[in-house]
Amino acid sequence: MATDASAVEAPEAYTELLSEIERVNAVESASEILSWDQQVMMPESGTPARSKQLSTLSSLSHDLLVDGPVGDLLDDLEDEPLSDEQQAVVREVHRQYVRAERVPGELVEEISEATSEALGAWESARENDDFDEFAPHLERLVDLKRQYADHIDPDADPYAVLFADYEPWLPLSQAESILDELRETLVPLIEDIRASDADLATDAFEGTYDTEVQEELSREVLELLDYDFSRGRLDVSTHPFTSGNQFDCRVTTRFDESDPIGALTSTIHEFGHAYYTLGLPDEQFGSPLGDHRNLSVHESQSRLWENHVGRSAAFWRLLLPKFESAFPQADDLSPQDAYEAANQVYDENFIRVEADELTYHLHIIVRFEIERELIGGDLAVSDVPERWNELYEEYLGITPPSDAMGCLQDIHWSHGSFGYFPTYSLGSVMAAQLYDAASDEIDDLEPKIEAGNFEPLGEWLRENIHQHGQRYRTNELVVEATGEDFTAEAFIDYVTEKYGELYDC
Amino acid sequence: MATDASAVEAPEAYTELLSEIERVNAVESASEILSWDQQVMMPESGTPARSKQLSTLSSLSHDLLVDGPVGDLLDDLEDEPLSDEQQAVVREVHRQYVRAERVPGELVEEISEATSEALGAWESARENDDFDEFAPHLERLVDLKRQYADHIDPDADPYAVLFADYEPWLPLSQAESILDELRETLVPLIEDIRASDADLATDAFEGTYDTEVQEELSREVLELLDYDFSRGRLDVSTHPFTSGNQFDCRVTTRFDESDPIGALTSTIHEFGHAYYTLGLPDEQFGSPLGDHRNLSVHESQSRLWENHVGRSAAFWRLLLPKFESAFPQADDLSPQDAYEAANQVYDENFIRVEADELTYHLHIIVRFEIERELIGGDLAVSDVPERWNELYEEYLGITPPSDAMGCLQDIHWSHGSFGYFPTYSLGSVMAAQLYDAASDEIDDLEPKIEAGNFEPLGEWLRENIHQHGQRYRTNELVVEATGEDFTAEAFIDYVTEKYGELYDC
Repeated sequence: MATDASAVEAPEAYTELLSEIERVNAVESASEILSWDQQVMMPESGTPARSKQLSTLSSLSHDLLVDGPVGDLLDDLEDEPLSDEQQAVVREVHRQYVRAERVPGELVEEISEATSEALGAWESARENDDFDEFAPHLERLVDLKRQYADHIDPDADPYAVLFADYEPWLPLSQAESILDELRETLVPLIEDIRASDADLATDAFEGTYDTEVQEELSREVLELLDYDFSRGRLDVSTHPFTSGNQFDCRVTTRFDESDPIGALTSTIHEFGHAYYTLGLPDEQFGSPLGDHRNLSVHESQSRLWENHVGRSAAFWRLLLPKFESAFPQADDLSPQDAYEAANQVYDENFIRVEADELTYHLHIIVRFEIERELIGGDLAVSDVPERWNELYEEYLGITPPSDAMGCLQDIHWSHGSFGYFPTYSLGSVMAAQLYDAASDEIDDLEPKIEAGNFEPLGEWLRENIHQHGQRYRTNELVVEATGEDFTAEAFIDYVTEKYGELYDC
Repeated sequence: MATDASAVEAPEAYTELLSEIERVNAVESASEILSWDQQVMMPESGTPARSKQLSTLSSLSHDLLVDGPVGDLLDDLEDEPLSDEQQAVVREVHRQYVRAERVPGELVEEISEATSEALGAWESARENDDFDEFAPHLERLVDLKRQYADHIDPDADPYAVLFADYEPWLPLSQAESILDELRETLVPLIEDIRASDADLATDAFEGTYDTEVQEELSREVLELLDYDFSRGRLDVSTHPFTSGNQFDCRVTTRFDESDPIGALTSTIHEFGHAYYTLGLPDEQFGSPLGDHRNLSVHESQSRLWENHVGRSAAFWRLLLPKFESAFPQADDLSPQDAYEAANQVYDENFIRVEADELTYHLHIIVRFEIERELIGGDLAVSDVPERWNELYEEYLGITPPSDAMGCLQDIHWSHGSFGYFPTYSLGSVMAAQLYDAASDEIDDLEPKIEAGNFEPLGEWLRENIHQHGQRYRTNELVVEATGEDFTAEAFIDYVTEKYGELYDC
């Protein structure tokens, strides 16, 4: 393949390939809307019809990819001269094709059935705090996903193959060394914080906050951040999420009358996801060049806005007056109080989704290590609870009071999603590196944030991340954006400095 | 084929056929949700992605039907012994297959492009009151739809072929004679009404009615009518519509602060559609036995609830106290006032969607006659405005002040929907016949309505119409439900009696 011909006219096979993949992706983006509707709008009894619609679309998009001309077109294109962008498209379609083509349909169906059954079992097991209810399902899913990995690449570490479903272009070894570095930094840092005498305004937001007013405030924050409501919506759902494409990307959030900060950070987090999606190029809709890079990069965008913007002192100097005008009860708070409350590190928290910015990663790392042992055959399913509690004691110094608040807390395993969790931490780490680079290139970024001027940061992200779609692999993208390899350095500096200052340690 | 073996075990080809058609219908029902979302929830800039999703699903469901095994399975089943129900399924799938298979893909695409362009031209032509802007598009669509009809059946009257897209199992000749009868009854009846001295409470609902309170009242009415909100929703859209399946069927309505009756009748109309869809058998989802019969039957259900229930004196005796408690400004009205206001016949109305129960059909008949002449080649497109005005003068004694309020008023032609309009009137006529039969079989139906007990009527419709899906052809279904052939008799008796009494003529 030629690599330097950026203006090469597209070979016919390339044009056909693009048209085929646009159809596959149109079906998948249709399914995404159906899932959004299911979680946000669908009446409660609509499930049987919705399941049938979704499973039919899923099998159709699989068949379109595997049984249509895509395989032959990819072969035809092997010896064609292609521009860099065309090569990127072919690389991404090839990867998608190979993963779909190598896994037998029966196994896909078996996994789909097993996850359906596991979901109900997990819900019941968590409710009854009875790991044994879930164990046989987890065993079956571990087995099925190992088979799945074996079909895709029998010579590779199966966990690396599963991880690549969510993060295709970052070697697992690199992910692992980043996570190791996090653990080595965060475990002692959290110990120091716990030993600190610092007196933070942790109860600044105690009290009750009307959820309708919270919703208005969330809308105001979205407007402030330049969320384009002509291409989006804000709704409420049990678990906040973002869904859509560059023309129509919707966020959801949730409100709890005792936790106004939780709703705001969750709204800002989802905004970060949506802002990325809305920054993908319009004219590339349906092509890999118009699709987001992968889960780590997506999470880097949500975490950058949530943590580096939404939990910053500058942001709270901007937001507090708006917060106080929505909630006059809070009018004796200082921006520093709000900043401290939004960044407190909890002494004892067992639940990942309620964790602070630091302990969060240890929740991830525990699960990552257990997943590796499970998929690698080094840990029996029946030993998961014991291993879970052992690692919580070791890294967080706490022992979950129950499996429900321990290894049963998250839904992901019942979906068969092994390899997904690390992308949460990798995204946070990447966010710190990107935010550092943006700060270097944008004059007075902090004062701009304090003034409510988010456009320079938004533009920087659009130009350095969003517009590229899947043009670059993950590491290449980080190098393009920051001039440096993807490492944990910026994140470690960020947390060490921020929490050192907050907790005087 | 055997016709008497209701318990015949299904041949393998039948089971396969059903599974294939379930997939086709799952894709179509997915598209329906996407269209609902587009009209009710989608942010304004979402169109490019939505169009691509919908056109992809449309071509996929077409290919599934035509390029998959359906054709061969239908051949295999020709000589198999089948139960009555199985025969009905094969009959419906065969019809769907033949119509899809005979029309070349290029023509389908050409029609799709032509309607896209015609839509914009129609909007502009209506806004500028300039028929000439729309005329070339209308000419092209008339030509394309004649070609379409010719592919399906070159020996048939092309208008009959187009009509059968909406009403497959009612001969056009029968439809025509029913519409002729309507015209012959309604033209002189409306003349008599206009000549009458009766003094109806036509301005009973003058004033301003808060639209949020109207929405609450619409919800209350839906609850009253036993709409199952666990399988549905009420939302607002520019044009009220109903969308969904037996598990999830949603209605929309619109509110105008000067017309509270318009919102209520429109909500009740859409309820009638939804109640039908929700009455289709759950276990037949995706099969023709779980799908609605066709547009005339669908419209019979909406019109039955809208007119025979929602505009009845008994219903207003029930509803008025609720209306007055929502709108205390109306507390000096009597049920008779409300009944008269809801049933007034307008002296001069040019717009179909704003018409009363009588003049409505003359709007339909004018368009039906013009469509037949256009498709039959007896009327040039350029002569449509003149012909339109001529027929309005003849049937309604009024001349539209402009083409915008005349032949350009409705969107349907820009969709290429010729043959659709008659189903509106046929549905109303069928509603009268069904309501008559229900009244005969249910003791004290009117007092039950007045008491808010809608269950007996609902049950009668479930048993006699809804549960059958497409088991019977249209005429057969009317015979099954009423014991008599489908005719205009009941409708003519109903309007003659009701409006004779109201207007003393």
